Amino acid sequence: MAVYTQVPAEALDSFLSRYDVGTLVSAKGIAEGVENSNFLVETTQARFILTLYEKRVSEADLPYFLALKTHLADRGLPVPRPIVDREGRALQTLQGRPACLIEFLPGVSLGEPTPAHCRAAGEAMGQMHAALRDFDQVRENALNLAGWQRLAEACGARADEIAPGLAATIAEELAFLETNWPLDLPHSTIHADLFPDNVLVRGTKVTGLIDFYFACTDIRAYDLAVLHTSWAFSGDGATHFADRAAALDAGYAASHGLSADEAAAFNILARGACLRFLLTRTYDWLNTPADALVTRKDPLAYLRRLAHYRAA
Amino acid sequence: MAVYTQVPAEALDSFLSRYDVGTLVSAKGIAEGVENSNFLVETTQARFILTLYEKRVSEADLPYFLALKTHLADRGLPVPRPIVDREGRALQTLQGRPACLIEFLPGVSLGEPTPAHCRAAGEAMGQMHAALRDFDQVRENALNLAGWQRLAEACGARADEIAPGLAATIAEELAFLETNWPLDLPHSTIHADLFPDNVLVRGTKVTGLIDFYFACTDIRAYDLAVLHTSWAFSGDGATHFADRAAALDAGYAASHGLSADEAAAFNILARGACLRFLLTRTYDWLNTPADALVTRKDPLAYLRRLAHYRAA
Repeated sequence: MAVYTQVPAEALDSFLSRYDVGTLVSAKGIAEGVENSNFLVETTQARFILTLYEKRVSEADLPYFLALKTHLADRGLPVPRPIVDREGRALQTLQGRPACLIEFLPGVSLGEPTPAHCRAAGEAMGQMHAALRDFDQVRENALNLAGWQRLAEACGARADEIAPGLAATIAEELAFLETNWPLDLPHSTIHADLFPDNVLVRGTKVTGLIDFYFACTDIRAYDLAVLHTSWAFSGDGATHFADRAAALDAGYAASHGLSADEAAAFNILARGACLRFLLTRTYDWLNTPADALVTRKDPLAYLRRLAHYRAA
Repeated sequence: MAVYTQVPAEALDSFLSRYDVGTLVSAKGIAEGVENSNFLVETTQARFILTLYEKRVSEADLPYFLALKTHLADRGLPVPRPIVDREGRALQTLQGRPACLIEFLPGVSLGEPTPAHCRAAGEAMGQMHAALRDFDQVRENALNLAGWQRLAEACGARADEIAPGLAATIAEELAFLETNWPLDLPHSTIHADLFPDNVLVRGTKVTGLIDFYFACTDIRAYDLAVLHTSWAFSGDGATHFADRAAALDAGYAASHGLSADEAAAFNILARGACLRFLLTRTYDWLNTPADALVTRKDPLAYLRRLAHYRAA
């Protein structure tokens, strides 16, 4: 959420000369995305996002992410296209970091999506899933059931520092999901993190699906479950909005839809999605100093969402 | 250098409706400037910088800074103009913070200015000083001789933690300047911090003078001294470039120029400028944890510059 690596204008000028994109007009470091350095770069021809990949994103995964975004942009999805240089390369090195020049997409992220926005987001996810039917690269989900088990162990009894009883709830939920997780449902490439932060809109039109750095191969309907947990609740997780949830489903049904098996397992998938974010937030909370400049996200906002699906 | 206050798209939409600037297309938090939250905002009509003023900038000084920028923009200087709403107000409140929508200027900041850039920067400073002859608002320089004395006391013997003998050098230089500071030279509004960071260029043309948050009333030629200490040396202060220094003077002479008294006192003014940045960097170094996310600027880069002017 900050700029970790600085790029002097002279270095940027020289970097841009590898491409057919015009010459540098302006560049601003932007506070966005996971722990990468991002710049909004304007040339005489267009605007771009320049990303320098910092340590959190594994360099070995970068070709996968770039291929995925290119695949989706090629199929007309509003996904920022990695730009290739004159020799056809998208992945570069700049200031000693892996780097990529990426298409700039207009639009803003919403704080409070309306049902109309939810419908558009559900429809965009379905279009993305349809466009991914012929994407054949595979990346394991590091935050799958086995990943949740590792995180739960790493948090252990210390979870109770956040809320009394939290460690027991996590253990209980994990045991339930180990028994009931619907591994036989269709797998596909999924975004796995399509929060409102990662969807750009203008009016009620989706203009961008961004931040694919959790994308992986997993149960396809789990992607829709993540969408529900992040779009259909108030930020603190205390209120579930049935109208937003219905709009997400209607949008998804219009462009892709769930099978009867997927629909039957949906509540379990949503519980898994809640546990995934509950665990990463709990882990981050326990391992981030309270006075760090990074904002810690409240784990309890996902405990409340989990309670909703457990009661349903 | 980060975004401290978030602005949801809905709040930004409603904020922009106070102005005649079109409607929101995109907004990105940018990592720039002193400790304020800055956003690059695009509307259907133009691009703007939106600044939310955080604690480091005193709210009482904001009308001064906005009047100064408006004065310079009115006189054709490439200074970002504060935008007024339909009721003529530039200073607003957004997310509980003082806020201002400001003109976006193209251009980039240089890492290594050439003599041609130095000439352009010197000329732009002279144009700014000429345009400020009829600006009559006054703001005391918090970092004047009395401010340096306070900083030197606050650092005290701990300066030697950075380099042995630094505390003694600071005390000696301060004593010299207390005796020799040329207070009778003409005073004016000055930028007081016109580092390469704060000048936007395209090619060798100056397209922006930015970041006026140290602007104040002080010895006018001191502004040119700050320009010299920041443009005419290598970043580490070890090398002085005579060609860049000559170009700064030639540019300034073309648009404003120094009187004989100012030229005679220039070496002392440059020593004062070096001490000012040596002191603020020393203070920040001693008071910023080594592991903070903020980059500490090297005080010794200004000790070396000071040595250059003491030897001259």
